[in-house]
Amino acid sequence: MSGRIEGKRVLVTQAADYMGPATEKLFTAEGAHVTTDTTDLTQPGRCEALIESCGEIDILVANLASPNFSGIATAELSDGDWQTSFDMMVHPLHRLCRAVLPQMIDRKRGKIVVFGSAAALKGMKTLATYSAARAAQVGYVQSLGVEVAPYNIQVNLIAQNYVENSVYYPPELQQNEGFKKSLRRQVPLGRLATAEEDALFALFLASEESDFFVGQAIPFSGGWTQ
Amino acid sequence: MSGRIEGKRVLVTQAADYMGPATEKLFTAEGAHVTTDTTDLTQPGRCEALIESCGEIDILVANLASPNFSGIATAELSDGDWQTSFDMMVHPLHRLCRAVLPQMIDRKRGKIVVFGSAAALKGMKTLATYSAARAAQVGYVQSLGVEVAPYNIQVNLIAQNYVENSVYYPPELQQNEGFKKSLRRQVPLGRLATAEEDALFALFLASEESDFFVGQAIPFSGGWTQ
Amino acid sequence: MSGRIEGKRVLVTQAADYMGPATEKLFTAEGAHVTTDTTDLTQPGRCEALIESCGEIDILVANLASPNFSGIATAELSDGDWQTSFDMMVHPLHRLCRAVLPQMIDRKRGKIVVFGSAAALKGMKTLATYSAARAAQVGYVQSLGVEVAPYNIQVNLIAQNYVENSVYYPPELQQNEGFKKSLRRQVPLGRLATAEEDALFALFLASEESDFFVGQAIPFSGGWTQ
Amino acid sequence: MSGRIEGKRVLVTQAADYMGPATEKLFTAEGAHVTTDTTDLTQPGRCEALIESCGEIDILVANLASPNFSGIATAELSDGDWQTSFDMMVHPLHRLCRAVLPQMIDRKRGKIVVFGSAAALKGMKTLATYSAARAAQVGYVQSLGVEVAPYNIQVNLIAQNYVENSVYYPPELQQNEGFKKSLRRQVPLGRLATAEEDALFALFLASEESDFFVGQAIPFSGGWTQ
Repeated sequence: MSGRIEGKRVLVTQAADYMGPATEKLFTAEGAHVTTDTTDLTQPGRCEALIESCGEIDILVANLASPNFSGIATAELSDGDWQTSFDMMVHPLHRLCRAVLPQMIDRKRGKIVVFGSAAALKGMKTLATYSAARAAQVGYVQSLGVEVAPYNIQVNLIAQNYVENSVYYPPELQQNEGFKKSLRRQVPLGRLATAEEDALFALFLASEESDFFVGQAIPFSGGWTQ
Repeated sequence: MSGRIEGKRVLVTQAADYMGPATEKLFTAEGAHVTTDTTDLTQPGRCEALIESCGEIDILVANLASPNFSGIATAELSDGDWQTSFDMMVHPLHRLCRAVLPQMIDRKRGKIVVFGSAAALKGMKTLATYSAARAAQVGYVQSLGVEVAPYNIQVNLIAQNYVENSVYYPPELQQNEGFKKSLRRQVPLGRLATAEEDALFALFLASEESDFFVGQAIPFSGGWTQ
Repeated sequence: MSGRIEGKRVLVTQAADYMGPATEKLFTAEGAHVTTDTTDLTQPGRCEALIESCGEIDILVANLASPNFSGIATAELSDGDWQTSFDMMVHPLHRLCRAVLPQMIDRKRGKIVVFGSAAALKGMKTLATYSAARAAQVGYVQSLGVEVAPYNIQVNLIAQNYVENSVYYPPELQQNEGFKKSLRRQVPLGRLATAEEDALFALFLASEESDFFVGQAIPFSGGWTQ
Repeated sequence: MSGRIEGKRVLVTQAADYMGPATEKLFTAEGAHVTTDTTDLTQPGRCEALIESCGEIDILVANLASPNFSGIATAELSDGDWQTSFDMMVHPLHRLCRAVLPQMIDRKRGKIVVFGSAAALKGMKTLATYSAARAAQVGYVQSLGVEVAPYNIQVNLIAQNYVENSVYYPPELQQNEGFKKSLRRQVPLGRLATAEEDALFALFLASEESDFFVGQAIPFSGGWTQ
């Protein structure tokens, strides 16, 4: 335990998915009081009720993920799939921030860490919808970060790719030689990040060490984007 | 007339707003066949019907704008205002592209030029919603651009700010000394772009001269972003 | 002839290399008075003498290239090779600009177009020296562009990669199947740009159409960088 | 002491300047064995001799600074001043890395942290030289980072601005009302970073927590760049 977020009250959303489990584990080990939520944040009023139920929150970890519909040509992507990306990753981000900001503004202190995606920064085929939604998160964080910086609230985003994750990279895929080769070609580091490494970066952004970071989307992708 | 888009069939959306009038004027003067549309693209099926009604389209100018809600704290931005940005600027972009791509893919040629915003690239206070929606456009363009490049279709975006526009910069504001001073401080060039200068950049992106540009969001802001 | 730079006095440096020949050809066809120089700009006083000898220059095309030493591990790159990149591409850029700026400032008009490299924007192995020198050009252009914008002088850079060039891509390489495959994998557009396409972008940046572009480094790489 | 770099052998260059003192203090407190060097790295062979004399180095902190010549018009910047920036900040960076890489490659582990500048990322007037040199560092780091990532060596750069520093921001300036106002206008966070905050970011980049960061230049500027 490094003492960097000891005693802090943390909310991790969509906690069973994406970077939720690794964050919960590390932040708890670091002595934070971690509340995890696994309810459906697309339901009207749910984000607001969640924040309300938590009481004081020092650190909001906005962990929001959706299917990425990779492989479907953009010209064939249905309205339903399109909306899903925004409903799951973009609209809840605003609702969560809107609900938690007043208490952070009152206390003149707070951290919002968003687990986003490097897909927001670099184009990939058949990923236009997901990229659009992830980029919306980046645009939101950049402007909100600037807006609330004077209240000593830091909002930053991890623009990640190639992080271990059983949904995107199931164990059998990770053993596949073709996948390993493609990994060496795509990712300068030549490997996936572990979820724990990712959580360690979130820890940095959640701690006071990141007080000077304002509205940034920082690549975390083994060199895939820089 | 420079002959750069002579005879091309162009569709300009939301043509009475934002960069619509300047684009229509310049592109017509350049000998293109310009169809302008001023209907409400948030209506279900409207984007698809519009593309259908146009027949062949060589160049889609996706000119989409909405109120920016500047001045409203993000913590107080209503669900309705939030949705407006996405309903007017993001969802129609996908629907227009989805509808026009099949014919462009068939012909192995096409241009999509998006009038976006530099607000997608640099944070500004009380603009988180607008920034998020404009950034979604950028993410969409980056990935779609990569996806359709092999069909020789170029999708690019003008990330503009400080362009003359009677809504954002009414004539009386432009005469105001405080505004002029702020302009010199914010914009290295020290002045607004004319709408025609902006249309000239769109002309470049609409012409064959831009065949090597793929999914780019290019700042057009007098140095405000680079 | 489109009339975009008709009658303009243009200087193209290192005119036998890199984008020199294509620029000379297109700019001349467009009715500009093009002076080409092929002397060694690393010689002391040579940049200053060149500018002096030209008289009035409306458009400086800073076309500067050097070997890129690709394939040599950075840990083994000699001081001599290291210096070569800076001597050929970075120091002459400053000397040329320093010499030409006073007359442009006097006239309150001028264009400086730099043929740079996308290697400045995205890391590539065994290219650290070349990347450093090309990035120095970008940093220089960004700040100089801001500084001289109030004098209505625009300084911009083409951050190019995958442009046809008999040195980097000899004809036999271009026919090679492995190269073609690698091209489709690396470059979303799947082909090299012609030198003429590149010159057309330089034409845009050299013309009044780019008056609102300030100190920008714009990717021109078929989607390799965006 | 958080245990993040305990027992690591660290070399901090130009240790009396820029971020040297804060880095030495924090890294020593964190249990690292810190060697500080204050010799003139522009002397031929000096970088190589320094690395040689250190024996094993786990973490190289390339802290290199020079006068920035702010306020001198670029058109008037002498060859001597121009060279100073490169001699002090760019060439030693290559020589230090070149000398230390072989041992890191042998051990398949190493960290190089560069204290750079956000001036590399965003143009500022009368700063073209300094920007060029700082951008050269960024280009170097991006490509070298990619090249040595497969050896598990991470090279990253802090692109900082508005960090407390008695040279750029003497105490009396910091008390000045005009300066404070300008700070609030330029820097969203509205204050300078402390040198310790900056060193804490260097600590992150020097520790194993940053193993997935490859050749990145990360803004550290209170929102001035994002």
